[in-house]
This record gives sequence, C-alpha cells and structure tokens, in this order.
Amino acid sequence: MTFTLVLLRHGESEWNAKNLFTGWVDVALTEKGRGEAVRGGVLLKEAGILPDVVHTSLQRRAINTAGLALDAADRHWIPVRRSWRLNERHYGALQGKNKKEIKDKYGEEQFMLWRRSFDVPPPPLDDDDEYSQAGDPQYADLGAELPRTECLKDVVARLLPYWDAGIVPDLRAGGTVLVAAHGNSLRAIVKHLDQISDADIAGLNIPTGMPLVYELDEETLAPVVPGGRYLDPEAAAAAAAAVANQGR
Amino acid sequence: MTFTLVLLRHGESEWNAKNLFTGWVDVALTEKGRGEAVRGGVLLKEAGILPDVVHTSLQRRAINTAGLALDAADRHWIPVRRSWRLNERHYGALQGKNKKEIKDKYGEEQFMLWRRSFDVPPPPLDDDDEYSQAGDPQYADLGAELPRTECLKDVVARLLPYWDAGIVPDLRAGGTVLVAAHGNSLRAIVKHLDQISDADIAGLNIPTGMPLVYELDEETLAPVVPGGRYLDPEAAAAAAAAVANQGR
Repeated sequence: MTFTLVLLRHGESEWNAKNLFTGWVDVALTEKGRGEAVRGGVLLKEAGILPDVVHTSLQRRAINTAGLALDAADRHWIPVRRSWRLNERHYGALQGKNKKEIKDKYGEEQFMLWRRSFDVPPPPLDDDDEYSQAGDPQYADLGAELPRTECLKDVVARLLPYWDAGIVPDLRAGGTVLVAAHGNSLRAIVKHLDQISDADIAGLNIPTGMPLVYELDEETLAPVVPGGRYLDPEAAAAAAAAVANQGR
Repeated sequence: MTFTLVLLRHGESEWNAKNLFTGWVDVALTEKGRGEAVRGGVLLKEAGILPDVVHTSLQRRAINTAGLALDAADRHWIPVRRSWRLNERHYGALQGKNKKEIKDKYGEEQFMLWRRSFDVPPPPLDDDDEYSQAGDPQYADLGAELPRTECLKDVVARLLPYWDAGIVPDLRAGGTVLVAAHGNSLRAIVKHLDQISDADIAGLNIPTGMPLVYELDEETLAPVVPGGRYLDPEAAAAAAAAVANQGR
C-alpha cells in the first residue's frame, strides 16, 4: 500500500504578473491564476485523484487556489487545515521590489544567490516597512518566530515540524492529501521527500497550478517514483522553464 | 461579557435564480450571489466584526460564500469547520422542481405547507432520482442518517447536536464565530436562539448575503437583543420581503 500526496502551487498572483518579490505579502490571484487553479482541479478530477483533506498556508493566493481547485474537482467539502508554516519564503527587504530592478542593481550573481541559494537570506525587513507582516492578526501568535527574512534552509526548518505533526498523520490515515502552497514551501517538501542535496535544490522549479502527485511508501514515506509525477507533464516542463527564467 | 455570532446566508445560487427547489442539490453561486458574498464580507470589515472561526455546511454555495466574504474581510486565513448538519433543508421529491409549477399543481395551501410548515415534510426523494444525494461521497458516512426529505423540525433536530458540540465551544472560547449556511439551517439556529414558537417561525425569512449579528449572554447564550441585528438593516428588510414572495 502507498499513501497519495498532491502538491499544488498557487496560480499566478498579482505580483507574479508584475514581476515583484512577494514572499509574505498577501496578494490576490489574477484572473489567469484563478483559471490555473480551476484547471488543476479539473486535472485531479479527470485523473480520479480525489483529496480527502487539504492543507494550505495562511496566504490568500494558496487558500483561493485550494478553494477553486477543490470546487472544480467536486471536493470543496473536505476538511481544511491551515498553517503559517506552509507560507511562501519570507523575502525580507526584497518584498515589494521588482525582480528585474534588483537584478540590475545588485547583479546577476547576488540576485541568483538571494533567489536560489540554500542558506543566504536577503536583508531583513523592518517591522515598520509597508510590506511587513509584524502587525498582521494572523501572525499575532508567532511572537519571536515571526520571520523578517528567510532562506530556503529557514523554510525547511519551520516547515518540517508541520510536515511531521500536521501532514504525516493525515497521510498515515490513508486518505489522499492535498497541499496547496507556494514555490518555496513546496520546494522544501520536495527536498525533504526526495532527499535532494542543498546544492541540487537550486535547480528545482515547481510550476504554478499543476498537480504534482507522489505515491509514498507506507513505512518510510519515501516516494515510490522519485520526483513524483505531474498530471500534465508536458505543460509542467514548459511552465517550470518559465519559472526559472523569471527576472531575466 | 458577551459572545459574538454572525449568521450569513449564501448569496443567490443558480437555482435560486431559476426559482427551483434546491435543498441538498449542490448548485453553484451566480455572479450576483458571488457579489452578495463579497459585500457581506465588506460589511463585516467595515463594522470591525472580524470572525475568528467559520462554520459551513458541506454545500458549495455556503462554502464559496464563506470564502468570498472572508477574503473580502481579510479573514481568509481563519480555521474552517464544516458539517452536513448545517446543510439546507432536504426538500425531498421537490428538489429540482420549479416553485411556481409546484404551486400551480398542488395549490397555494399545500405549497405553503411544504415551504413553511414546521412539521410537514414533502414526499421523500427516491435514491435513484437524478437529484438524490444517496451516492455522494461527502455523505457516505451518514448511513441511515442521510435524509430523503425534511421539514424544519427535522432540520432543528439534526442541527442542534452540531450547535452544542461544534459551535458553542467556539463561542465559549471567546472569539467571533461566523456560520455561513442556508435559509432553513439558519432559521433553525434563530428559532433556537430566540426561542421562537413552532407557529411563529413560519413568518421568519433570512435574506441572502446579509450578516446577521447576535451578541449572546456568556452564561445562558441568550441573545442580548432578540433577533440580533443586520449590519445593513434597510437592505435586509427589503431582501427578506423578496424571499417571502418566492414562488408568487
């Protein structure tokens, strides 16, 4: 027997469309992004992969992606669990900045280091910055855990406790588990599942709105097929290449 | 100290718009209904009445109303709980039938009896009817509890266990509780809260998309103001009159 995990990155957001670093800023989906979410749900339904429970971040682009996809799959009624630990990587002082402008200002090398290095976070964001989440009610309980910037290593560290305590129990209960989240929180899960090295994770991009399905061994939770499978592999490959080219 | 309960009836659905009995048939919101839901959320935000937890039925028109309203109120991230016990009244063999045709066929008196009597359910719906929910996965666990028809008395009976075990604990935890549901499941809650008689509940109509706010005594859970208050009282009065005239 295996457990089924479906990872779904939110569709295009308003700031994806504007090529801005978003991080914890709680922007909405674009109309295109809403369409991507619906299509992800249609793919799940067509494949007969029907989630029994959904986990989301606290951010509206993931929450609404989950809602639209599940509605399209006729699974809108399943239990919902949310955690800030599934949030996108906090982009620190880059939040709200244009990706191309940052690249032009700091150069390709620094730009790629901030975007894709495992352990180099951007400079921290001031609590009084307009794009800070320090006063947001959904994070009031975090106290000192509230990030002001994160590298992917930080995301892995804050995500794994929720993987173990929140998601694994739902997998072991035997149902199909959907995780609707973000580029970097999903990369953190994939890194953990596929045991990707700190160096190699830099090359992994997850496209938006494309369900990525893992069958996991019931004992070890290791993927039966490393890397899982996309329900629409050709579209996923093209979309992942586009993600890799952001900021170019 | 008081507890705050907000009741929100879903916005216009596709079958409201077509004047069909809907009940447990899982129809979608219309564009107008989506707009009503958003406006309900804006009213909550403007009033500073911010839900800490939301309860919905298992039906998409209530689930999507909750999602749209909470997104508009910047409360999309709160915990979500769902129960079939908040579903609309099961309309039995009337599900999928045109309200006006039923009235013309059976007469005003029988029509009003099925719509508004406390204890006369319509004839039951066959399990092999196209509008039956007997095979729906979200109700697979109900077994013999799955209704084939309901009067309001039946709704009260299946709703109250969830009121006591699901909603009251969230009220007593001190937060603001939003219940996004249906005309008759919300009438059942209002009947219970305001101790409305079996006869008088017939005259109570709840408009769509209008937040109805109750402050409840912390000891008895009795409403501080009987009937609660609508955030937009004039619009609510006009809309309730329109509901009362359905099928005319």
